[in-house]
Amino acid sequence: VGPRLLGEIEEQPSVAARVAESAEAATAGRALRRRTFLYLAARGSSDNAATYGKYLFESHGLAAALAAPSLFTLYGSPPDLRRAGVIGISQSGAAPDVAAVLAAGRRAGAPTVAVTNMPRSRVARAARFVVPLRAGRERSVAATKTYTATCVALARLAGAALTGVADALRAGLALRPDAERLAGRIRGQGVAVVGRGYAYASALEVALKVKELARVWAEPYSAADFEHGPIALAGGGTTVILIAARGPTTQGLRAFAARLSRRGSHVLALTDDAALADACEDAALLDADAAEHLAALALVVPGQLLARALAMRRGLDPDRPAGLRKVTRTR
Amino acid sequence: VGPRLLGEIEEQPSVAARVAESAEAATAGRALRRRTFLYLAARGSSDNAATYGKYLFESHGLAAALAAPSLFTLYGSPPDLRRAGVIGISQSGAAPDVAAVLAAGRRAGAPTVAVTNMPRSRVARAARFVVPLRAGRERSVAATKTYTATCVALARLAGAALTGVADALRAGLALRPDAERLAGRIRGQGVAVVGRGYAYASALEVALKVKELARVWAEPYSAADFEHGPIALAGGGTTVILIAARGPTTQGLRAFAARLSRRGSHVLALTDDAALADACEDAALLDADAAEHLAALALVVPGQLLARALAMRRGLDPDRPAGLRKVTRTR
Repeated sequence: VGPRLLGEIEEQPSVAARVAESAEAATAGRALRRRTFLYLAARGSSDNAATYGKYLFESHGLAAALAAPSLFTLYGSPPDLRRAGVIGISQSGAAPDVAAVLAAGRRAGAPTVAVTNMPRSRVARAARFVVPLRAGRERSVAATKTYTATCVALARLAGAALTGVADALRAGLALRPDAERLAGRIRGQGVAVVGRGYAYASALEVALKVKELARVWAEPYSAADFEHGPIALAGGGTTVILIAARGPTTQGLRAFAARLSRRGSHVLALTDDAALADACEDAALLDADAAEHLAALALVVPGQLLARALAMRRGLDPDRPAGLRKVTRTR
Repeated sequence: VGPRLLGEIEEQPSVAARVAESAEAATAGRALRRRTFLYLAARGSSDNAATYGKYLFESHGLAAALAAPSLFTLYGSPPDLRRAGVIGISQSGAAPDVAAVLAAGRRAGAPTVAVTNMPRSRVARAARFVVPLRAGRERSVAATKTYTATCVALARLAGAALTGVADALRAGLALRPDAERLAGRIRGQGVAVVGRGYAYASALEVALKVKELARVWAEPYSAADFEHGPIALAGGGTTVILIAARGPTTQGLRAFAARLSRRGSHVLALTDDAALADACEDAALLDADAAEHLAALALVVPGQLLARALAMRRGLDPDRPAGLRKVTRTR
């Protein structure tokens, strides 16, 4: 088992501290925040980061739509972006569909921003503004440091507070023993990863890491949607991983955890709320005094560590997940 | 096993024909299409219909964002909707979060539209325009006729063509024997339901029906996102259900099906493309001469029938799924 992924996970606080000061993001953010709405294009982990960005932009007043790239690439019938700000996100900068959305935004006269770790890439060239992640090369196939760096870049574009982000991520790293213990408690056919509010994006990303690294069928949900149907699956020994940052969602999630436990689910939590942790079978308790949107981001880190530990328990090499390429080029 | 769900599935062509002529939708659609962007609020099946609507509105020029309701209900920091058109979707009309998004739109001076089967409900009262589905009472817990009716209402709001929608849904009903045969071919730990373009929403909805009715772990994907990571799961006997309407996505999906088959997945398809059907282990082939967005909608019908058949094979009563309530009231 190679140490590559773990090393990249551990780089996250310093990478995040760097992008939190990005002058490029400050400039591009001013151009975006003058617009009527925002249009975000991304795939995979970057799309999860886009969801994190959507919540931050919307809570700062700017409605944000996640792109349907096929309308640009396959159908040739994109929406009118003349009043939009457009953000394209691609760690590798190689995604043709993300570049196509940026190009359409540019043709419409919209300010366009590429968020990428490769500032001389195709995606970067398609945009007027480039926000480089400066994360250093990411060698693992599964994105970790580029994920959190992208979220921080989007927060800076949205004008959200970033004080303490590196400390919060460091507190996430300190949960490695807890994350490894939780990995040993996962049983049943599948795993539901549930979040709400700012932590919803973190649930999307942790579920993706569990699938990519451990090949365990993990499905993300908003807590609200989960009660609209999929809760039927949550009896009989299903494992539910709750990702919960302290804030307006906490009270409802405590009741949600209690309900699931009564139905026989194994409810585990990654959280900074001690009472919620107590309501679960087991939990990793984040010790950080951070704003809710930063705690929500930091909770991705124990999720990455949990996915890695689960992969190793299953005899898989987390540095080389089977069947995945680092760069995909979908149209 | 009760006949209730099957009866409601079979009502879909006539219900759809009715809402395709909705005068209320024609009027409200004109008000919406003058706006700068669209904001859609919904949960569960209605949220899948909102995704269908997003593709139709965007391909007719209007960018569309799916709401993050918690920003309205829990955080009290909604985005600026002064330039938006707002649609709230709730079959029961009881969803407080959907009503809250409509109320915020109304306060901002935006045209607001409720799409609901209950025209005197809370959600209807929150909106300026009401588009009644006129689907008759839906007694099954799993939404079927209200799902397709909502999609048709959204298509009419978007100004999309609806000629032949009832015939297309009827062609979907004719696939019942095929859907029941396909249900017998599902094996492995979990099922991936994959779509792209207009059929992406159909993949979301079929996956939800399989979970609700058959309690099988079914996860929906865009074909593009699937190749960004979750494809790691698609070896070793996983079942993949492709939902594919003939159009610009078809060629890519044929290659996708062939790739998955080579990796050992069981690839099944609901499609109107004979060549794609041939590239799969088994398929239900829709015989309809319909526009792509209508074929995509009609392919939900064999998906509903497949989910119902799978439930019965597993000894479950599709009319009374365990652990679900018809109306959920999340905030």
